[in-house]
Amino acid sequence: MLSSADVIIVGGGLIGLGVAWRSAGRGLRVTVLDPSPGAGACAAAAGMLAPVTELHYGERSLLDLNLASAARFGDWAGELAGLTGRDIGYRTCGTVVAAWDGADLKDLRDLHAFQRELGLEAQLLTGREVRELEPNTAPGLPGGLLAAGDHQVDPRRLHTALGEVAIAAGVTMLPSRAVSAVVSRGRVSGVRLEDGTLISGDQVVLAGGAWIRELDGLPPQVLPAVRPVKGQTLHLRAADPGLITHVVRGSVRGRPVYLVPRDDGRVVVGASSEEAGFDTRPRAGAMYELLRDAQALVPGVSELEFEHVATGLRPGTPDNAPIIGATDLEGLSVAGGHYRNGVLLTPITADAMAQLLTEGAVPPELLAFSPRRFTASPQSIDRDQGAPAWN
Amino acid sequence: MLSSADVIIVGGGLIGLGVAWRSAGRGLRVTVLDPSPGAGACAAAAGMLAPVTELHYGERSLLDLNLASAARFGDWAGELAGLTGRDIGYRTCGTVVAAWDGADLKDLRDLHAFQRELGLEAQLLTGREVRELEPNTAPGLPGGLLAAGDHQVDPRRLHTALGEVAIAAGVTMLPSRAVSAVVSRGRVSGVRLEDGTLISGDQVVLAGGAWIRELDGLPPQVLPAVRPVKGQTLHLRAADPGLITHVVRGSVRGRPVYLVPRDDGRVVVGASSEEAGFDTRPRAGAMYELLRDAQALVPGVSELEFEHVATGLRPGTPDNAPIIGATDLEGLSVAGGHYRNGVLLTPITADAMAQLLTEGAVPPELLAFSPRRFTASPQSIDRDQGAPAWN
Repeated sequence: MLSSADVIIVGGGLIGLGVAWRSAGRGLRVTVLDPSPGAGACAAAAGMLAPVTELHYGERSLLDLNLASAARFGDWAGELAGLTGRDIGYRTCGTVVAAWDGADLKDLRDLHAFQRELGLEAQLLTGREVRELEPNTAPGLPGGLLAAGDHQVDPRRLHTALGEVAIAAGVTMLPSRAVSAVVSRGRVSGVRLEDGTLISGDQVVLAGGAWIRELDGLPPQVLPAVRPVKGQTLHLRAADPGLITHVVRGSVRGRPVYLVPRDDGRVVVGASSEEAGFDTRPRAGAMYELLRDAQALVPGVSELEFEHVATGLRPGTPDNAPIIGATDLEGLSVAGGHYRNGVLLTPITADAMAQLLTEGAVPPELLAFSPRRFTASPQSIDRDQGAPAWN
Repeated sequence: MLSSADVIIVGGGLIGLGVAWRSAGRGLRVTVLDPSPGAGACAAAAGMLAPVTELHYGERSLLDLNLASAARFGDWAGELAGLTGRDIGYRTCGTVVAAWDGADLKDLRDLHAFQRELGLEAQLLTGREVRELEPNTAPGLPGGLLAAGDHQVDPRRLHTALGEVAIAAGVTMLPSRAVSAVVSRGRVSGVRLEDGTLISGDQVVLAGGAWIRELDGLPPQVLPAVRPVKGQTLHLRAADPGLITHVVRGSVRGRPVYLVPRDDGRVVVGASSEEAGFDTRPRAGAMYELLRDAQALVPGVSELEFEHVATGLRPGTPDNAPIIGATDLEGLSVAGGHYRNGVLLTPITADAMAQLLTEGAVPPELLAFSPRRFTASPQSIDRDQGAPAWN
């Protein structure tokens, strides 16, 4: 036995590190296991903090969660800057949604009505207003929408800062792969590493993103219903900043695309969405489509320098909402399934999980995201029974 | 003074190394100067050996040169394999030119008539024949042309092999930048390196590709009329070989594109052609156009893995033909300006220059490519007089 901990967190991405930091801040001895922390979805994510423009019909409870987490980013940015001297790239830039054609504009008007009904801050724009806000958008776009409160953060910078504050708070980071959970007398009591080492712990948190099910030794019904959803982002760079100043997004002939401008002239273009298992190879066709659609909204993209393409696997769930909370197996909890909102939901997930790990329950507004929502009928998430939507 | 040589070659790309190898083989003491050999156009080139499908009206003498050099590749591949044990990727794969539309097919028919008039091996194809030769080309292409003698080589492998045989033949490779030529009593007598070191030599060969004019101390009228023409190639990879088996090229809505398949499943897609000075940043818009046009000819390109984008600078000349031979300055010769045909023309350039350096003259068939063809009126290549086409 190498060591023991109050809490073992399997996964050192944004979620794992956020939970580790906040839990250590509440006095827990925390160990994070990850052979390559931050190499998952975080490495490809653009970092949009977009509860309003990511609003989907029928996902009302997710909207509230997204809004609540977005509201914490200002404080997090300040706190992390104070502790590390690092700027995590939190920018209150706002988001312009550009309509591609008349049908698209009609959809945006419907969405805007829904947003207003929910009390969200959003403003319809004429084509002229879109061009005033973003002069480098394509001429002739028929209109759009401004979500002045949809911002951005730099996921890689955030991850670096979280790693530093976690370590400063006493978290043990082990660059090792957890291969199996140790379950005895009906509860989890630790995990075993690739080299056979056992780490004992009172509580184990699954925070492995798209790979969250890759831990042997657990009853199938407690494994979170997560599937990988491949996403590619293109990382481009302008000689000078100023091509765009807001996040610019839209749906070009039905295909969503966004452009996130950084202070230094970099522009992140995303994102493909592909059901391709654990394949993380960048696909030429996805790059083509992103370039085509980004250029359609902002023609000057063609003159940007290509730096690299990044591929990540989003942890998708059957209802597109995250899975946060205790499982039916004592000592085992989940902080996963964040799908498109992992960066955005890092603060609220970290705080909710820290509360769960110290007080035994998440805040009431998180109850809707319990892992147990899928296990009323356990077979439905039994791997062997087959559940094609996510398995 | 560091050393002396019979011949100093400024530039260690394919041309410089080829000339060095062949000259050392004739008993000359050769020194090659290049801070990063092979990092120029060679790093981006696809390696098409395509005298027939690169035929352009009005470039008859270039055609003969291209054909003569292409004919030497089989022997070169064998000789280099024998000396180094390396396979330079010479493949007698043939080239299929696919017509994109009816107008394009008409152009191909005209080109074919011209090719036949010149006695070249080329065969018109129906759409069905194109698909029989290359089943993964787009359905509905109206026809094409087979140039069974247009092959390929791997430029990076060729460069590695040439470096080895040059060294084995006694060539001195210095990873240093030549900054100026030393001219005294009306002839060149050596070059000076960045650190001030002088290398004396009876003959100096300019073989610096697009950077060939970057040597101080020479009379402007002997600097070759070379300008950089930026080209980008995409390096893709299939899980299995077999997407295409010939080089496939075409002109999609007037934009030339080609796909070169390697044995291991890699496919090189090229090439943009941009007048952008010495800018070598990969441009997003060029990548988009290459992906678009390559997919138009071979839709399965969309499923290939993206490995990297390479950018090179072709050494363009006013008449698109290379500049090979002695200059008006005694002791100074040029092996440059190979534009789109640097890989293809490496063997004949190497042999012709070795002959020049040992016997005082290039073979008669190379006389048309003399540096002196631009200097009948010296002002025409005087940098200060301005020659917008290439300056």
